[in-house]
Amino acid sequence: MSHDAAALETFVKRYLDTCAKGVAADIAALYAEDATLEDPVGSGEVHIGRQAIEGFYKNIEAAGGISTELLSFRPGGTEAAFVFAITIGGAMRIEPIEVMTFDDDGQITSMKAYWSPADIKQL
Amino acid sequence: MSHDAAALETFVKRYLDTCAKGVAADIAALYAEDATLEDPVGSGEVHIGRQAIEGFYKNIEAAGGISTELLSFRPGGTEAAFVFAITIGGAMRIEPIEVMTFDDDGQITSMKAYWSPADIKQL
Repeated sequence: MSHDAAALETFVKRYLDTCAKGVAADIAALYAEDATLEDPVGSGEVHIGRQAIEGFYKNIEAAGGISTELLSFRPGGTEAAFVFAITIGGAMRIEPIEVMTFDDDGQITSMKAYWSPADIKQL
Repeated sequence: MSHDAAALETFVKRYLDTCAKGVAADIAALYAEDATLEDPVGSGEVHIGRQAIEGFYKNIEAAGGISTELLSFRPGGTEAAFVFAITIGGAMRIEPIEVMTFDDDGQITSMKAYWSPADIKQL
């Protein structure tokens, strides 16, 4: 099922807001049970399933306070691409490009984050 | 085979430069024989194979002079995500987010462009 642009943007903003609150289980709950996560793309590591995904976010949670800001958003039917800024522990800022796919209920079925170490800005 | 960030950025810039020159056959030649193209994502139409892809670019070619500018670039092993501006016929400007995958030779194996009519700016 295709989602309209406003619905897709709501899903993405809910994700970024939940990331900023920093509770890994809450972030993982936005993903479908059998979702996949690749962050960064090209790392060769794909996290499969909500439990593995929660483990991924626990590592970020441990890094300290997070803030997020949506910079650009583009809808695509059952998908969305967006640029956002994430600040971690007040120490570094990254602006990844992410692509997400969603199921009929708006749960995230896949997430791919494109960024490289060269994109990290020390604050 | 994974490509380093500089190589991936070269592939993307070559693509944008070739788009700006506006010859559909030259743009299609950057794609692998069995590549796929979805532009915009969510349109429900995927162009499969170099010949279909050339047809897609012929339509853009017919729209008038094109200029392109790379705004943000993120590498991802065999993939890349980027934001660029495209101006068509001096009349409209769009800033899509695109994701491309590449083969070992740097040919494009898939392209997905995320944008919606709401993202078109009349000039």
